[in-house]
Amino acid sequence: MTRGLLIVISGASGTGKGTVCKKILSDLPAVAYSISATTRAPRPGEVDGREYYFLSVEEFKAWIADEKFLEYAQVYGNFYGTPLNKIEERLNRGEDILLEIDVQGALNVKRKCPEGIYIFLLPPSLEELKRRIEGRGTETPESLSRRLKNAVAEIKVGPEYDYVVVNDTIENAAEKIKTILSAERLKVARNTDKFNLGEDFE
Amino acid sequence: MTRGLLIVISGASGTGKGTVCKKILSDLPAVAYSISATTRAPRPGEVDGREYYFLSVEEFKAWIADEKFLEYAQVYGNFYGTPLNKIEERLNRGEDILLEIDVQGALNVKRKCPEGIYIFLLPPSLEELKRRIEGRGTETPESLSRRLKNAVAEIKVGPEYDYVVVNDTIENAAEKIKTILSAERLKVARNTDKFNLGEDFE
Repeated sequence: MTRGLLIVISGASGTGKGTVCKKILSDLPAVAYSISATTRAPRPGEVDGREYYFLSVEEFKAWIADEKFLEYAQVYGNFYGTPLNKIEERLNRGEDILLEIDVQGALNVKRKCPEGIYIFLLPPSLEELKRRIEGRGTETPESLSRRLKNAVAEIKVGPEYDYVVVNDTIENAAEKIKTILSAERLKVARNTDKFNLGEDFE
Repeated sequence: MTRGLLIVISGASGTGKGTVCKKILSDLPAVAYSISATTRAPRPGEVDGREYYFLSVEEFKAWIADEKFLEYAQVYGNFYGTPLNKIEERLNRGEDILLEIDVQGALNVKRKCPEGIYIFLLPPSLEELKRRIEGRGTETPESLSRRLKNAVAEIKVGPEYDYVVVNDTIENAAEKIKTILSAERLKVARNTDKFNLGEDFE
């Protein structure tokens, strides 16, 4: 069984990570989102291990103690987290897992899972990023300036990733990411079985 | 100026390296073969720096002494060699250079140029490699057995490369190599200029 790919997509906020990831998932049915764990109660129709891993507060705290989370947070009294142990299980079953995560979170994942594929999304330019954020019409001059400053700080971390993809259009960015995944599947480290020649030739 | 890609294609003899490389060069006009140096006289129509770099024996020996060759050999009294200095010049001008080379030669190149892209071509199976060699009708049972034994030894070196491509058909193999090159162009290390945000944002 070939281990699946861990695909980590990140980039400054406002770069369009979520839209590009949705396009990848829609184009590549074999790739699935990482599933979060939560302590909130399942809603009607939600299935454990599909929408979320549903844990009790005690279980969640035990997972924190056992360092099973890549990251976690408490939101309105409930815990949410990205469980590394579950991602490992799915990769070992041969599933490809897509993780959409903020810039700093992705670098934490890279330290724990260096064999993952780390892709940094860039806006076509900072001028364009500024236009996109302004276009929402929700920013004051102060908050716009703060967001751009944050984006600049985030983009400076980009060279620590493996690949960089400019999100000029969703289609272009998704095509480039699919090309990266195709090439990564040809890496020698993921194809060691191809060098087993069979006992006739040993 | 973005530095060009050094593309090194190798694989056991009989795997079809030459045919696949010709297909790549024909499909990707921006990629050019590495040019050898020789001490033989130019033939009518041959241009220095196009078919070969034409050197005097003294020049050739000086290049050997200066370790300018990745490899060289003497054939029928003339010297032939692969000049690393010329490859470096062309890469620095932004040209992509394709080097088709035997298994051991490629690993020597890798030690000198670790930033190159090292692609190992595999036959679909050793049975198929055997059929291909037998099909030429030029082998005795002894020479066939020796060639297969050599191929097995060469294939065992494959895991030291970056990528592995099965040469089931020339078209498939060439497509996969083109995918690898497209992905490699997205590597962060080849796109450091994209992270220069301009003085307005420093």
